Amino acid sequence: MFQKLIRVKDALRIIKKEVGEASLGEEEVEVKEARGRVLSEDVRSNVNIPPFNRSAVDGYAVRSEDVFSASEKSPEVLRVIGAAYAGVEFDGYVKPGEAVYITTGAKIPDGADSVVMVEYTKHLGEDKVIVYKGTRPYENVSRVGEDVKEGDVIYRKGEIIRSFDLGVLASIGVCKVKVRKRLKVSVITTGNELVEPCEGQIEGDKIFDTNRLILKNLLEEVGCEVLDIGIVPDDEGLLIKAIKKGLRLSNATLISGGNSLGKYDLTPRAIKNVGKPGVIFHGIAMQPGKPFLFASIGGKPIFGMPGFPVSNIIAFLELVRPSLFHMMGLRGEFVENEVEAVLTRRVPSKVGIASAVRVSIYKRDGIYYADVIRRGGAGVLSSVGKADGYFIVPEDKEGYEAGEVVRVKLFSNFVKGVR
Amino acid sequence: MFQKLIRVKDALRIIKKEVGEASLGEEEVEVKEARGRVLSEDVRSNVNIPPFNRSAVDGYAVRSEDVFSASEKSPEVLRVIGAAYAGVEFDGYVKPGEAVYITTGAKIPDGADSVVMVEYTKHLGEDKVIVYKGTRPYENVSRVGEDVKEGDVIYRKGEIIRSFDLGVLASIGVCKVKVRKRLKVSVITTGNELVEPCEGQIEGDKIFDTNRLILKNLLEEVGCEVLDIGIVPDDEGLLIKAIKKGLRLSNATLISGGNSLGKYDLTPRAIKNVGKPGVIFHGIAMQPGKPFLFASIGGKPIFGMPGFPVSNIIAFLELVRPSLFHMMGLRGEFVENEVEAVLTRRVPSKVGIASAVRVSIYKRDGIYYADVIRRGGAGVLSSVGKADGYFIVPEDKEGYEAGEVVRVKLFSNFVKGVR
Repeated sequence: MFQKLIRVKDALRIIKKEVGEASLGEEEVEVKEARGRVLSEDVRSNVNIPPFNRSAVDGYAVRSEDVFSASEKSPEVLRVIGAAYAGVEFDGYVKPGEAVYITTGAKIPDGADSVVMVEYTKHLGEDKVIVYKGTRPYENVSRVGEDVKEGDVIYRKGEIIRSFDLGVLASIGVCKVKVRKRLKVSVITTGNELVEPCEGQIEGDKIFDTNRLILKNLLEEVGCEVLDIGIVPDDEGLLIKAIKKGLRLSNATLISGGNSLGKYDLTPRAIKNVGKPGVIFHGIAMQPGKPFLFASIGGKPIFGMPGFPVSNIIAFLELVRPSLFHMMGLRGEFVENEVEAVLTRRVPSKVGIASAVRVSIYKRDGIYYADVIRRGGAGVLSSVGKADGYFIVPEDKEGYEAGEVVRVKLFSNFVKGVR
Repeated sequence: MFQKLIRVKDALRIIKKEVGEASLGEEEVEVKEARGRVLSEDVRSNVNIPPFNRSAVDGYAVRSEDVFSASEKSPEVLRVIGAAYAGVEFDGYVKPGEAVYITTGAKIPDGADSVVMVEYTKHLGEDKVIVYKGTRPYENVSRVGEDVKEGDVIYRKGEIIRSFDLGVLASIGVCKVKVRKRLKVSVITTGNELVEPCEGQIEGDKIFDTNRLILKNLLEEVGCEVLDIGIVPDDEGLLIKAIKKGLRLSNATLISGGNSLGKYDLTPRAIKNVGKPGVIFHGIAMQPGKPFLFASIGGKPIFGMPGFPVSNIIAFLELVRPSLFHMMGLRGEFVENEVEAVLTRRVPSKVGIASAVRVSIYKRDGIYYADVIRRGGAGVLSSVGKADGYFIVPEDKEGYEAGEVVRVKLFSNFVKGVR
């Protein structure tokens, strides 16, 4: 059918070579609003951490010269002149022979240089403490800048900001960060048979346009901004107009449908009439997902998504998502959420083409098992509804036997488990 | 220090037994807005899929009785009376001796009962087609309801709705779903030393309240609604008031700080004065995270989070998150995003207490390596900023040697990789 089917691995290499990192520009956002955004520059600490010498234990702040020789047998007695708590500093000065009660995290009072742990002391009456152990200077003290020095690089350009990074940023005195603008992706679906989901009735041979709804949500999930261009009828002129809009207003364009090899397959034709170089490859050696098309015009990628919903999803996860991450210029490597699972039955597969096999997962005695979803056609959307994930049978394998272990890529962190 | 340290596993068992599933109530939402929500009832299909008999291939819709004996050597010739495309049905009737050109997904015209693939036909002039292969009834036809029957249960109560489930729901004619209301969680931090992050200046021994910012974001990430009660000074009366507010207005309450065993440790005392049964355990056998406290009042849980930011994060991930998932009544099992990695150096650990060891990850020759973050104190928030995740040294292990393989729980799907 397709002139030449390209392996997924090669397809990804070709795409990444063609598109490169997108020029996204940057914007400044409040740290509180920055979760999930991508840093556009390195972040340095504005402060020392700790910002002052602070106690690492509960005990008494002392002058080490007063107690350096103290021991169980020959303790020292000091006069307690006050107390220091986290947030309530002692603002006097510790003179020879004096001590200050101190809790973890509290500022070391001026004059003192170390803390003797409360376990090695005994409070005596109103204002005396017996010290049974000596200290060296800075013992049990976290020194200013010990953890982080002002000016240290804490985050690198291209890192995604995680929930607790907001706390780290605030703690290093950073309240606004420069982040990349979100990657903007246009979504178009083509087909006379398509009707906006849940708007109006499905009549005759019309069907709901589920692909656009799915793609929009998958894109949002990876942090993209979506430009919804809508449903375009099977009309070359209108499709050309829609593609031009996508190219003009966004960094990448997804077109669902119109690229299998039937009578109404006009996506490749429309792309050809929009610009150069146009279609780079059409057809990948993976099922579902085979009709996937990749084109590029003026340095911007166009991903031709298969019309069958399952193909659409698998092609997105295997080809589009890594390409978008590449365009975002993310630092580091994406790690799939996978589990190893034992196949409960044989899975035959055609050699020469990879297969994405949908499975449901359950656990018994600490071992994951993968049940192949039998109703597996690319058009059967309900098969992904029931699936916890999928595994890939590589191009060169005839399949797997029951009992073999496969690596299942999970759709989410929850496996449905109970049967 | 603490009377009795409880193992994480036992702690979780105790919590789950005490709190059970929360009574969240339900609400109806549009499918388009339903990503990430939890179904509060089973979902059944409102339609048959396919909704009509449709072609599974490109070819000619025929009456099987006309062609059942057709072969390469003895083909049949039929009269082509029209065409049917996906979205453009043929509205005539196929009479004996007639055929209709048909594409994949198109409705089978009345009168026809099967489709002969285009590969086994030859178009002859204007309106004739030669058929070289016979068909049986329904051959190459996806029959109405074959994939999904009206009334079939497609999703179960307690499942989380994923991106592509929106498409599945729309395709089965479901436009609104009943979902559980979000779990509402109150967040309180206590401490005289705390200042709202990025508001005003840090002076003297004040520090930014990073824990609340982190907890709020971690809670949102797992789908909770957050009630931010704010910073409460070290005052028992005010803390009691804040706890009562949390109990009244939310399903669970998190209090950060005030639960280590220093002078100002008033969380347990305040809880005792609010209600019964109060504190169930205080102190877990894990570092960082040791001061974690669990209490319950009137069937609602109170989680006492450690004040040190790293302890706070680890205690959230190991104890609070699974407890909240339990309260949400999620169907299935949570799977951590983990990778196996080779330790680059020895990690000693105290027996009797589990350790959560922060690491950064990199990949070389297809193998992940885990570098322990050296600055590892529970107070050193920057250590999690640099970390890709952590692994647990169990209570009964003295640690790991360099070269041993550990299972690292990833903080996100990106590992920073490049060094």
